[in-house]
Amino acid sequence: MNFYKYSRKFAHDRITFIGLGNMGTPMATNLLKAGKKVSGYDLNTEFVENFKKEGGHSDNLNQSIKESDVIFAMLPNFKASDDVWKNAYKHMKKGAFIIDTSTFSPVDAKVIGEEAKGKGFIPAICPVSGGVQGAKNGTLSFMIGSDKDQFEMLKTILQPMGKNFYYCGDFAGGQTIKICNNLCLAIQMVGFSESMALGVKLGADPKVVTEVMSTSTGRCYSVDTYNPVPGVLPNTPASRNYDNGYNNELMKKDLVIANECAESVKLDAEIGRMVRDYYIKLVDLGKEKKDMGYVYQYILGNKKV
Amino acid sequence: MNFYKYSRKFAHDRITFIGLGNMGTPMATNLLKAGKKVSGYDLNTEFVENFKKEGGHSDNLNQSIKESDVIFAMLPNFKASDDVWKNAYKHMKKGAFIIDTSTFSPVDAKVIGEEAKGKGFIPAICPVSGGVQGAKNGTLSFMIGSDKDQFEMLKTILQPMGKNFYYCGDFAGGQTIKICNNLCLAIQMVGFSESMALGVKLGADPKVVTEVMSTSTGRCYSVDTYNPVPGVLPNTPASRNYDNGYNNELMKKDLVIANECAESVKLDAEIGRMVRDYYIKLVDLGKEKKDMGYVYQYILGNKKV
Repeated sequence: MNFYKYSRKFAHDRITFIGLGNMGTPMATNLLKAGKKVSGYDLNTEFVENFKKEGGHSDNLNQSIKESDVIFAMLPNFKASDDVWKNAYKHMKKGAFIIDTSTFSPVDAKVIGEEAKGKGFIPAICPVSGGVQGAKNGTLSFMIGSDKDQFEMLKTILQPMGKNFYYCGDFAGGQTIKICNNLCLAIQMVGFSESMALGVKLGADPKVVTEVMSTSTGRCYSVDTYNPVPGVLPNTPASRNYDNGYNNELMKKDLVIANECAESVKLDAEIGRMVRDYYIKLVDLGKEKKDMGYVYQYILGNKKV
Repeated sequence: MNFYKYSRKFAHDRITFIGLGNMGTPMATNLLKAGKKVSGYDLNTEFVENFKKEGGHSDNLNQSIKESDVIFAMLPNFKASDDVWKNAYKHMKKGAFIIDTSTFSPVDAKVIGEEAKGKGFIPAICPVSGGVQGAKNGTLSFMIGSDKDQFEMLKTILQPMGKNFYYCGDFAGGQTIKICNNLCLAIQMVGFSESMALGVKLGADPKVVTEVMSTSTGRCYSVDTYNPVPGVLPNTPASRNYDNGYNNELMKKDLVIANECAESVKLDAEIGRMVRDYYIKLVDLGKEKKDMGYVYQYILGNKKV
């Protein structure tokens, strides 16, 4: 018997996964499929029951934490992560991995990372890109902020859930790049919405605008994949009444963080502030659960959708 | 002898090409390579001499227009196009094609198209996308505004210069989509520059930011192909001191047109106005010949480049 191989296998076979939302459930399910023993937890008991149907466990949280080699979190904001980790520290075994895949500020990432490391755990703050579809398909991109000598091991642990694994620097590094990406995404979505609204008002066919721009210099994710015009592309939130997408509330949160970061480094992020204000406005209008592409309707002046 | 084949071949073998700048010369050269007889003209005699070295002709302009089946223009603005066509109308034969590949306002495109059609010519207003590299490689995208029944013939004529041919509607249609594309491109460039500046000031490595975003939801042409950070990608204007690219003066022109169009249809294009003002500022600062990606340096606060 190859004991080394056995111990390596054992080392990441016991997992606690906290946060079983749209992203967390498919991520945890992919860990199950890879043969791991995963205990999943969420404040929403319906989510927990669904996870159990996939083959997941969910007994006593603190006992699970105590027995686990890796504790994952996929939560909606820093406050939720902070609460989870403060409790987890009391029960975790030394040398266990803390892997937080939530999106929050790089400053908070540094705080969590250094605190966990100081207590003898192995922290990695690894926000993701790829959305619900990427989580289901196990093709997420992980932006990894950790001690560099943990990078290879982290890739092994994350493998069942992702396709791309980027080492982004210290504990804050992954969140920094995630925030840059989402700021850019929001600017592209609002910018394309404005460009498309211009075209439509000038008489262009949105399908032709999309077809041309998809192979031109204006191409981006919001043009060729996540198009905000209903009916132009199949399987977009826009084509299902802007439901079940990356919602305005989450985008607002990202943009508030991005702008706080810009202020902290004295960057005059004019476009970022303007785009943040669009998403604040959409949330104020009661559209917090609509997909971020809803901004196209707002710009077009169509408040009825 | 197949007379029909001969007459079809003859029908587009005599071409006059007006405007031999960075785009026009490689476009006209690709027509030469396809076996056409092309006479080329430009106010800059050096450009004309270079075109002759490629095998082009350049004798009497009005005689060339008189004998040509197709007259092309690739000029820097509407005024230049308007002057060229007003003269050409006096010499052209009925049924000859007018193909204007310059970028200007959709409103002006409609004026030129209807005027030419009224005089018995076949107009097509076909701005392009793909830049100097696309012109050289014969891989341009053409956004074609014309009578629909001319579309197939236009594709045949344009074939040596392009890869994608989009029918965009009436005479204004191509310019409408071109303006939408370039507005979106400018917003993406300024937006990505702001996002990248944020990342860099927070300590991220621009190469890692680019690598991650190229496979994430923030991806766009300005991230993965036309990256504005020096040294991040080879062969970008940014990596050659922002020289020989799509310059700030041209981008300013496009954005002025886009914003005039937005006003004409009462669209409140907030982001478009802000981005236009960046390019006006760059031109005012004497950076009119620098590539549009120079805006990254401006946002970063580096005025020395």
